[in-house]
Amino acid sequence: MTRFALLVEYDGAGFVGWQRQADGPSVQAVMETAAAHLADGPVAVTVAGRTDAGVHAIGQVAHLDLARAIDPGKLAQALNFHMKPHRVCVLRAAIVADDWNARFSAVQRGYRYVILNRRARPALAAGRAWHVPHTLDVAAMAAGARHLLGRHDFSSFRAASCQANSPWRTLDRLDVDRAADCVIVQAEARSFLHHQVRNMVGSLKLVGEGYWPPERMHTALAAGHRSAAGPTAPPEGLFLVEVKYAEAVFGGPAEEAVVF
Amino acid sequence: MTRFALLVEYDGAGFVGWQRQADGPSVQAVMETAAAHLADGPVAVTVAGRTDAGVHAIGQVAHLDLARAIDPGKLAQALNFHMKPHRVCVLRAAIVADDWNARFSAVQRGYRYVILNRRARPALAAGRAWHVPHTLDVAAMAAGARHLLGRHDFSSFRAASCQANSPWRTLDRLDVDRAADCVIVQAEARSFLHHQVRNMVGSLKLVGEGYWPPERMHTALAAGHRSAAGPTAPPEGLFLVEVKYAEAVFGGPAEEAVVF
Repeated sequence: MTRFALLVEYDGAGFVGWQRQADGPSVQAVMETAAAHLADGPVAVTVAGRTDAGVHAIGQVAHLDLARAIDPGKLAQALNFHMKPHRVCVLRAAIVADDWNARFSAVQRGYRYVILNRRARPALAAGRAWHVPHTLDVAAMAAGARHLLGRHDFSSFRAASCQANSPWRTLDRLDVDRAADCVIVQAEARSFLHHQVRNMVGSLKLVGEGYWPPERMHTALAAGHRSAAGPTAPPEGLFLVEVKYAEAVFGGPAEEAVVF
Repeated sequence: MTRFALLVEYDGAGFVGWQRQADGPSVQAVMETAAAHLADGPVAVTVAGRTDAGVHAIGQVAHLDLARAIDPGKLAQALNFHMKPHRVCVLRAAIVADDWNARFSAVQRGYRYVILNRRARPALAAGRAWHVPHTLDVAAMAAGARHLLGRHDFSSFRAASCQANSPWRTLDRLDVDRAADCVIVQAEARSFLHHQVRNMVGSLKLVGEGYWPPERMHTALAAGHRSAAGPTAPPEGLFLVEVKYAEAVFGGPAEEAVVF
């Protein structure tokens, strides 16, 4: 048995999310169907971040096991061939230890949330950003975001459907910056609760619009229940950009893809 | 009569190009249909760069005339409303002099061509880049590009269908740079011949792959006929990014959109 780590990119628009579901194509089903062509039977694909419907990935990491040791580059090519025409591809592949796990070995996950902050609705960015027409106060959003940094009970930003054992998480980064007509939120933590990034962004938008003072982020966090925080931001603005492990898996730091 | 200048963004994938055609939706038809809702009869929309099918714009400029002077911001909103669900939008609008012309008053046009230069086919960048799997020598491409700068007869890079009176053009900029897994070509000139940017990129790709030495760009240019140059790069990698006028039209330099 040989275990392979895979660096994966996908356009969330065409999928019901990572996990298999009855009502449409999932990234998992597309990858597992492709992998089955290279094995004698079903192949399970395990992923670092189980993204929701509409959420994109430019640096998702997955693993799978094959009976034989094939060249990782050829594995990536073969999977990409069999995954056509779905908008998912393997950027890199590497052989890893049998006990390495894309999900449980991950030490850091990084997400980016893109808000298109201009009057005009998106044309090129349709499905790739949350359109917020009124100008957001980015300094206030950044000040609000700082209240969430560190180790906290994030129950206020947790989906009802979240299956994690504990609502405690350590948020290492929550930056808010303007880039031309976009506002970019960048979040990093060892792991996130279900909808945590989208729920934090939904509240930060209220700060940016002036409905909430930045300190209200602290109040919402301390309340410890979902109704104290803002609405959930839509999935199409969210990108899983990076998953880190104790040791680099794909031979050095991955270049971040530039996507248009 | 009031003349309005419009800053326009569109996703070229959904259109047969700028100009009206019988076989599908054009940006021109969508804009003129929307504008007719705001007038008592047909409205003609004139554009700075008549892009081909599949070519995108993030900084296209157009103009139209209306009988009454309405607020430019309201005009943009109204056009955007009527252009739904097509992937075209007006980013800004401004009132201009009656003899100002989006096409003939333009003094500079800027295009960007995006090559996705990695082994894996595009997932998120599908329809937004030319996929070239083998690593391109960007330094060689940049050296080749310098041979085209200045005033020349560009017949070798001109489409057979080109309707310009003269094949002479002055190329002010042709930069080639790498950005992560993309190679970006940026071209600026007062005006371009039909397919000129895509034909220059098609030849530069041959340089980047090592089939042509950089000096071959000079040889191709000097030959003065289309067969001396490389193939035409596909339309989906091309973006019209900026049109400049003697005086700023939209109140200061336009921010460049960040598009994902």
